[in-house]
Amino acid sequence: MKASEQAMTELRSIRDTIDNLDAVLVGVLAERFKATQRVGELKALNDLPAGDPEREKLQIERLRRLASEAQLDPEFAEKILNFIISEVIQRHERIAEEHRADEQRADEHRAEADA
Amino acid sequence: MKASEQAMTELRSIRDTIDNLDAVLVGVLAERFKATQRVGELKALNDLPAGDPEREKLQIERLRRLASEAQLDPEFAEKILNFIISEVIQRHERIAEEHRADEQRADEHRAEADA
Repeated sequence: MKASEQAMTELRSIRDTIDNLDAVLVGVLAERFKATQRVGELKALNDLPAGDPEREKLQIERLRRLASEAQLDPEFAEKILNFIISEVIQRHERIAEEHRADEQRADEHRAEADA
Repeated sequence: MKASEQAMTELRSIRDTIDNLDAVLVGVLAERFKATQRVGELKALNDLPAGDPEREKLQIERLRRLASEAQLDPEFAEKILNFIISEVIQRHERIAEEHRADEQRADEHRAEADA
């Protein structure tokens, strides 16, 4: 059976909506990463660990609740958030490593200046 | 070194921002799933395949461009979209299966009525 012209028109319209929502997703994720980038810097500067299991647990519980309220599958919301959080933790670890490398270089520089 | 009070205040403020952005994410994902649910129904009713590689390729190219413009890592944006798309395709396949099961039951019902 060939797809009816009406169905294809509706399909195109819904795909436009999906494309608009994806543009919003990218914008929100970009803002979220700017925020977590700053969290990573604060953690590195204050020797706080990259991950925070207690905070992550609360985040996931809240998101599952928000997802249920929005009729979104909570399992899916949790999978997505876990994916984002694991990416963020990797970045925090990289920021902390870079911070340690910077400090080491600064120490070496000071040692040279004192020599 | 203990985290300074100022750093902890800033950390709490940024975490509030992250929580707000996550609530937006959940809302947008919920709307996106409503849209893809309808796409799944249209595809099942019109015997269209669950996935559409050409459309997915264009979606990913566009998202990588939007991500670059928003200073979001395009690799990460692509990973997230691939994750969402694979979840959507699984749902489309389930919708198509349910549609086929419904049709089969209707056929059986008609056969019984004719018997």
